[in-house]
Amino acid sequence: METLGFTLAGVGSYEPRTIVTSDELDARHGRPAGTAASHGIGQRRYAAADETSSFMGAEAARRAIADARWKPCDVEAIIGACGVMEQPIPGTAPLVQRWLGLGDSGVPAFDVNATCLSFLPALDHAVAGIALGRWRRVVIFAADIASAAIDHGDVESSAIFGDGAAAVAIEAGGTSRILASRLETYGNEADLCRLEAGGTRLRPGEDWEGFLASSLFQMQGMALFKATARRFPAFLARLLAEAGVAADELGTIIPHHASAAALAHLARAIGGDRRRIVDVFANLGNRIASGMPHALATAREQGQLLRGSTSLLIGSSAGVSLGGAVIRW
Amino acid sequence: METLGFTLAGVGSYEPRTIVTSDELDARHGRPAGTAASHGIGQRRYAAADETSSFMGAEAARRAIADARWKPCDVEAIIGACGVMEQPIPGTAPLVQRWLGLGDSGVPAFDVNATCLSFLPALDHAVAGIALGRWRRVVIFAADIASAAIDHGDVESSAIFGDGAAAVAIEAGGTSRILASRLETYGNEADLCRLEAGGTRLRPGEDWEGFLASSLFQMQGMALFKATARRFPAFLARLLAEAGVAADELGTIIPHHASAAALAHLARAIGGDRRRIVDVFANLGNRIASGMPHALATAREQGQLLRGSTSLLIGSSAGVSLGGAVIRW
Repeated sequence: METLGFTLAGVGSYEPRTIVTSDELDARHGRPAGTAASHGIGQRRYAAADETSSFMGAEAARRAIADARWKPCDVEAIIGACGVMEQPIPGTAPLVQRWLGLGDSGVPAFDVNATCLSFLPALDHAVAGIALGRWRRVVIFAADIASAAIDHGDVESSAIFGDGAAAVAIEAGGTSRILASRLETYGNEADLCRLEAGGTRLRPGEDWEGFLASSLFQMQGMALFKATARRFPAFLARLLAEAGVAADELGTIIPHHASAAALAHLARAIGGDRRRIVDVFANLGNRIASGMPHALATAREQGQLLRGSTSLLIGSSAGVSLGGAVIRW
Repeated sequence: METLGFTLAGVGSYEPRTIVTSDELDARHGRPAGTAASHGIGQRRYAAADETSSFMGAEAARRAIADARWKPCDVEAIIGACGVMEQPIPGTAPLVQRWLGLGDSGVPAFDVNATCLSFLPALDHAVAGIALGRWRRVVIFAADIASAAIDHGDVESSAIFGDGAAAVAIEAGGTSRILASRLETYGNEADLCRLEAGGTRLRPGEDWEGFLASSLFQMQGMALFKATARRFPAFLARLLAEAGVAADELGTIIPHHASAAALAHLARAIGGDRRRIVDVFANLGNRIASGMPHALATAREQGQLLRGSTSLLIGSSAGVSLGGAVIRW
């Protein structure tokens, strides 16, 4: 797949006001100082009650729109790419549309979900819509509140997750192209990483205790790491082959920040200079689906996405899925 | 927008085993017989505990795959288009992939959400992916269990909703084209139709009473009808103009079955022979996002989608959104 050209016209992000250091987190949950930090993270942000998913997503989108020098009314589509929605009905995208002052505009607003990798099919959808002449200016946002569902009895889960939002503004025309985009899903591993309460299957009125227990995110960290790591090298090879790009030709690498261990594994698998990887894990943690577009925003703000250079977006998610895209800017 | 050709290679649906007649429903909730039926519905199906969203979606997908004379391993992408997911993490599509015996295949599985209109952006995504040469065979499924969240204290909500699933198998090549596809979202009306519990905003551990109350679908039926009806004629005109098709050139009309009143309004707005509208509302009710692909499946099974004829997919959803697509077969 090679799409027509597009431009990354703007980026934006939103970080919740409240910083929680790893030592504070340990104290709060009665653990020895240094426990959380041993997972490679010094602090994370937690959203306050007023910092809802749609509020944060809209703030990030507003910044991306301003960065693109658009006005909100220039936006022709709003695509949500959250890992978990703010509420089941309606989705997060219509709520973001309302926050942006576009609630009477008719601008299409819908959501795409591949848990932590939601940004990838959302980007595919946006770029395909542009390639087919349907839209000229699209905003993709992702906002996630991991802190709503952390099981602090699981030290790794407690340590690694944080909240945040990011957005990108994508415009028709220009030289950027998706050289390859790939998602591989392995549903047999679906139970390794799950949040079960909050859909059609579990009913809060039927089994309150069970519902409450299932309202916490459950992760079998080591099994999950193994399930993705053993498939990762072949996945990466297929993605790069599809793009016709060698690993050492890659410029900036824009990962999903699953964990410090996952980032170290990524660095080993790709090889070369580790500084190519946008790694903000120590300061922000795993922010579910908002991490990848936030890393993309960071790379752009740092002037790393030079015309003609090639970036790799890459990561794994619940599903279990492996996903990536190769973009030539 | 005009995409390259595709083929609707197969369709399938799944209807839950349990039939609940309108009189049974009235008796169950202490209402005079005839109350539910006055909403234009004689019966609906309710899913049993084993008929989860992913189970039903997979059954419908299996039938669509068989109807297309594919094997499951021929499928190159699985796109979920449910109104409400089975659980937040992972999404419904990876669970369906597992049910289909493809859980170790790597076939990409992700979800698209525009509440009752989810099928439209999912179809756009599938057809764009085919047009860009990414996939040759895609399954889209939708499964919804409205009965998980019905407020039976609201007679209209109690009467009109039912459960079900449907799927389509879409293949590259062939003569079918999407002549136009349009989604208009009006987020200012988001509160007219909502299901608030089950995402990042409401926490079951913080306010149990509030959470339980918010676990029921809330609809301001008349205000919702007005909000969509007043925008519908102009929306329809824009959609048909984009397609270059006049209302009287339309063959089969494939609606979202919102309510008997909404279907009557649709018939008036489009004019012509009402029998063009695939209307199974009286037997199955409003099945959220699964209704539109089910109507498409029904039309195809009845031999209505003749080569060269033109269909209109059309409806409204929470959001509030209006959506439609014009397809030349």
